[in-house]
Amino acid sequence: ISLLLHQDLIKNTNIRISLPAVCFVWQIAMIVLFGVFIRYDEESDVRKWIEFKVSHNITSDIENDFYFRYPSFQDVHVMIFVGFGFLMTFLKRYSFGGVGFNFLIASFGVQWALLMQGWFHALDPDTGKISIGVESLINADFCVASSLIAYGALLGKVSPVQLMVVTLFGVTLFAVEEYIILSLLHCRDAGGSMVIHAFGGYYGLAISWVLYRPNLNQSKRLSGSTYHSDVFAMIGTLFLWMFWPSFNSAITDHGSGQHRAAINTYIALASSVLTTVAISSMSDKRGKLDMVHIQNATLAGGVAMGTAAEFMITPYGSLIVGFCCGIISTFGYLFVTPMMEKYLKLQDTCGIHNLHAVPGMLGGFIGAIVAAAATEEVYGREGLIETFDFEGDFASRTVLTQGGFQAAGTCVSIAFGVVGGVVVGLILRLPIWGDPSDDNCYDDEAYWEVPEEEESIPPVLEYNNHMTRKHPDM
Amino acid sequence: ISLLLHQDLIKNTNIRISLPAVCFVWQIAMIVLFGVFIRYDEESDVRKWIEFKVSHNITSDIENDFYFRYPSFQDVHVMIFVGFGFLMTFLKRYSFGGVGFNFLIASFGVQWALLMQGWFHALDPDTGKISIGVESLINADFCVASSLIAYGALLGKVSPVQLMVVTLFGVTLFAVEEYIILSLLHCRDAGGSMVIHAFGGYYGLAISWVLYRPNLNQSKRLSGSTYHSDVFAMIGTLFLWMFWPSFNSAITDHGSGQHRAAINTYIALASSVLTTVAISSMSDKRGKLDMVHIQNATLAGGVAMGTAAEFMITPYGSLIVGFCCGIISTFGYLFVTPMMEKYLKLQDTCGIHNLHAVPGMLGGFIGAIVAAAATEEVYGREGLIETFDFEGDFASRTVLTQGGFQAAGTCVSIAFGVVGGVVVGLILRLPIWGDPSDDNCYDDEAYWEVPEEEESIPPVLEYNNHMTRKHPDM
Amino acid sequence: ISLLLHQDLIKNTNIRISLPAVCFVWQIAMIVLFGVFIRYDEESDVRKWIEFKVSHNITSDIENDFYFRYPSFQDVHVMIFVGFGFLMTFLKRYSFGGVGFNFLIASFGVQWALLMQGWFHALDPDTGKISIGVESLINADFCVASSLIAYGALLGKVSPVQLMVVTLFGVTLFAVEEYIILSLLHCRDAGGSMVIHAFGGYYGLAISWVLYRPNLNQSKRLSGSTYHSDVFAMIGTLFLWMFWPSFNSAITDHGSGQHRAAINTYIALASSVLTTVAISSMSDKRGKLDMVHIQNATLAGGVAMGTAAEFMITPYGSLIVGFCCGIISTFGYLFVTPMMEKYLKLQDTCGIHNLHAVPGMLGGFIGAIVAAAATEEVYGREGLIETFDFEGDFASRTVLTQGGFQAAGTCVSIAFGVVGGVVVGLILRLPIWGDPSDDNCYDDEAYWEVPEEEESIPPVLEYNNHMTRKHPDM
Repeated sequence: ISLLLHQDLIKNTNIRISLPAVCFVWQIAMIVLFGVFIRYDEESDVRKWIEFKVSHNITSDIENDFYFRYPSFQDVHVMIFVGFGFLMTFLKRYSFGGVGFNFLIASFGVQWALLMQGWFHALDPDTGKISIGVESLINADFCVASSLIAYGALLGKVSPVQLMVVTLFGVTLFAVEEYIILSLLHCRDAGGSMVIHAFGGYYGLAISWVLYRPNLNQSKRLSGSTYHSDVFAMIGTLFLWMFWPSFNSAITDHGSGQHRAAINTYIALASSVLTTVAISSMSDKRGKLDMVHIQNATLAGGVAMGTAAEFMITPYGSLIVGFCCGIISTFGYLFVTPMMEKYLKLQDTCGIHNLHAVPGMLGGFIGAIVAAAATEEVYGREGLIETFDFEGDFASRTVLTQGGFQAAGTCVSIAFGVVGGVVVGLILRLPIWGDPSDDNCYDDEAYWEVPEEEESIPPVLEYNNHMTRKHPDM
Repeated sequence: ISLLLHQDLIKNTNIRISLPAVCFVWQIAMIVLFGVFIRYDEESDVRKWIEFKVSHNITSDIENDFYFRYPSFQDVHVMIFVGFGFLMTFLKRYSFGGVGFNFLIASFGVQWALLMQGWFHALDPDTGKISIGVESLINADFCVASSLIAYGALLGKVSPVQLMVVTLFGVTLFAVEEYIILSLLHCRDAGGSMVIHAFGGYYGLAISWVLYRPNLNQSKRLSGSTYHSDVFAMIGTLFLWMFWPSFNSAITDHGSGQHRAAINTYIALASSVLTTVAISSMSDKRGKLDMVHIQNATLAGGVAMGTAAEFMITPYGSLIVGFCCGIISTFGYLFVTPMMEKYLKLQDTCGIHNLHAVPGMLGGFIGAIVAAAATEEVYGREGLIETFDFEGDFASRTVLTQGGFQAAGTCVSIAFGVVGGVVVGLILRLPIWGDPSDDNCYDDEAYWEVPEEEESIPPVLEYNNHMTRKHPDM
Repeated sequence: ISLLLHQDLIKNTNIRISLPAVCFVWQIAMIVLFGVFIRYDEESDVRKWIEFKVSHNITSDIENDFYFRYPSFQDVHVMIFVGFGFLMTFLKRYSFGGVGFNFLIASFGVQWALLMQGWFHALDPDTGKISIGVESLINADFCVASSLIAYGALLGKVSPVQLMVVTLFGVTLFAVEEYIILSLLHCRDAGGSMVIHAFGGYYGLAISWVLYRPNLNQSKRLSGSTYHSDVFAMIGTLFLWMFWPSFNSAITDHGSGQHRAAINTYIALASSVLTTVAISSMSDKRGKLDMVHIQNATLAGGVAMGTAAEFMITPYGSLIVGFCCGIISTFGYLFVTPMMEKYLKLQDTCGIHNLHAVPGMLGGFIGAIVAAAATEEVYGREGLIETFDFEGDFASRTVLTQGGFQAAGTCVSIAFGVVGGVVVGLILRLPIWGDPSDDNCYDDEAYWEVPEEEESIPPVLEYNNHMTRKHPDM
């Protein structure tokens, strides 16, 4: 009976029809929509760039935005695919799913993001076309980051088909909230504390809350890490940590904007590491460090600097942000995540609450405060206009008003995350997505052909002896 | 007897004389040849650059080609050493050989490539010197990529000395076919679909065909992967995948050329991932994904965009290329590689047929079609000249003719690969290279000091107990 | 008794108070000092950059130093955190400590370095403020590299609190010797052969000598590598190797200086790989390669080019440097390290003597020779001034004098390393730092919560059977 039951449970995860169907249908849709809408922009189209140089009196190709942003783009790209991917390899038997599904949904998400963000931000009303360039690629990577954050809460408990749905809606919701926050409210959020981290964090938490599994402890034999899976996860951590200055500076203003955002993020992250280590050590009776904290909370300073990095927050201001967020995030792993599981019935595999939701929210409010405190003395008149984009309809906005709108933007992002996540969570409860049963969560066996483990591969000599021993009649 | 036989077989792999001899002789030859031929170019020589700035009326050092190409160069460099290297760590007991021999032959190959490519493309007829700069480094990395691709077919079945021979001839053949294709036929092939991937793929396949091992199944205990070796291989996959936009844009025209090549490649690769996942899932009776497909076929879109990426292929055109190549490549892994082994007697360890040979060939023909379809309306007159280099002797060439030459170039690259590979394969059959016997293929033991595996390292406490148990008299 | 003794030994490593105390106190000190001293420089401050552009007649933001140096900075950053970090994961049970403590001390070190280097090099005497920009970040990464090198000698034998002390003093000493060498002696040392590698190497060796552990062989069960830990270490090796051209070119002169330094380092490193392989193979009776050599000695060419990379050393000169240093370094691993342990009582876990101390010292002298051999014919008058900074007080210095000062600088760096290391070593012998006992060196158990190893995770089906077997009454 147990065997039959088990076979029955395994059947649930058969995605031989649904996964290929989703991939093909959506990919074909992308081709059609790209065909209708997407074109090169004036810096990537050979004819337009030649004309652009003439019309703008540009003498050197180095003025192409490609050279301002491509190095940062590639760093962001590494964060999305290796950073997020490897950070999620820490489970002992879900490394394939961690890095592999991250790869799948990010690849789908960036395509959908180019369209969604294009419709909202880069649609030429005359031609009905979206123009894309290197900044669009960065924004697409940013957009999909919010869905990858959400995946962190769901890691090991959902099917790849569900993840595709999470990403489809995640990218859609992102584009809308981003439009509201950046365009309507005219907030600044270059590194996405609000639009990426707070939104993505609460979106994932809300989904995970709806998908609560009361018997998840049936999979607890697989819910931890092994020695080497923890080392793999450090690859993810370090590439996220190292390239976060590029993340926060990738789409800021040319010149001092990118320069300053990189410096501030670098400083904040360094500070986070020390306070994370301090709290992690204090929390163990013998002062031992916990890899979970090192892998995650060290990054909190980068998340929290996402909004303020481009402002004149000052180097010591950045240090203080990193200092506080390392502490808050580590405390979250120690106390909040277990309590959320116990009392809120919310299972958060990677602890995105502590790494993205809370630091992202804090980052939004920090940005609001720093914006409200901006002065003409520090920024200069022209600098204020450049930094906060006080132009056009917003030419008369004051820094205080700007601070208020920044705070409002943070609330919008959280609201979008929570409400969107609940709705998507309900959709994911339909019994058609091939998700695993409670006792084979965190198990790559469900969706991957896993190599048989020969723990010790015998060297040739012993191998021969062994053969001889086993078949003495040979 | 078995033991004696075995010891005898092991003796074959003794490379204590041959490997150091090859390394020393060739490295000394490099020093001599570099001394005779290689000099800094006008952008890396301190005196020449100062004079160049004056003579070209350049006011800023940012116009140095270094700033246009160095970020792309470093991405390509990572692809060569970490990308190819780690992609080949997937075998359970050949990870040292995968990443280590890749390191060795790439390091030798780039030196020889600087000379070979220099003689063909950068030799000053007056001084008899070759001038090198950052673009030469990129081209050397490109050149050696074709030999690393060939290594993929041979992985685990050859000695490092044989690999050095493969590289020596591979680089030489590459430089010649590249000269014919790029200079004589005046093809465009910035990302090397033809000159790198089609050539390298068929070169490796032809060598492997000549070196066919009928009893290779004696090593089949080592021919698979383990859980963690598959995760290591994903490091290679992802760095190749992420940096492929840099690969295809590294040596294209400054400005919109580099910009567009990066965008097209990014888009094509995203599309490949979805169709690879779809076919991989469809091919398993329970819809499970196969790591071999994810590690390899996801990259096919990048290979196939190697020629066309710098053209105005349009974003949806790039999506279609990635879509088709993901499917074709995965089908290759499912059906063609096993059939080639069975009927063609061709053993292709990494499946380079499906990742490089076929997508490279397709990429060449795609480039031909896109070139032939180019119009002045889309490119502008000046853009056509810039993109296809219709200058000097080729000023009167039409796009249709160009398309024909592009197709011809693809055929040349394949012919060089096949013929060159057969010749090199025959050379490698000489019994002097220390290659492994059939039953210790795929085994690092042959060429590496492999650490003894203590599967479970006892913590101190148990260790002491264990000691006590072993020596109860203590 | 053995159990009691053991528990007693374990108690020594309790750092629950000391580690958090050090982290908090030092991080708070950083915040205060940053608040007092550190400000954005004129290229990262929004107001100052706008004014700077006007006053310097700069029309494009691309002239901001950020675009000259940020790609190199990110490569250096990867070397510091992933390169050094993963290179130190090779021990079978000290991977957490290798990569994790590297992360901790580098994060602290860069903050302290920004202050120390700022006081010596970037303090505005009028305002009393230090201005920082992207070059400061690179220099901070460089500065901390010397302490990470020192960690290599101490790996597995010290507590994280001791490492913080090593870094505090290491960064301080570095800033002083760097000031003496670069400012007072007016040496050139862009890639830090002297100031980083020779200093860091001898600093670490001197500390390790003072901390000699006569009974370290009690930990010898943990002093080797495992198959997969060696593959992890190759991640470190390759990222160091690939990005070393960025390391040596990161802070050289704009234009041909950066360009040439990258080319020279690329070439030297390629050469090192071949001679390392040759010597490694020759040293084994069956020609097998040793991972220790491949992981380390292949990098010696980069270390040795740290001073001369920006000079006109010529491409074949670079090849010769790499050729010799690969040989010397591998011989060091084969003979010198064991002899140093036996006769000098100096235990050098990672062999930094062979990778950093000796190649760094050689690099200093190579730089001296190349500088002394510089001619106006090769460099041009203006080029000589630019390359060696013969301006201001040093306008009349000749290349011969410069060569002499370069050699003197090398001696200064070694003296600082040896004397500083002995003093710091004596401080570290105080019995308050929580260092491990001789029999739990190289063991992450001392400072990390290590996951329990379930060597074979049973798949669900077997798991159920297993349960049944264990509890037949269920």
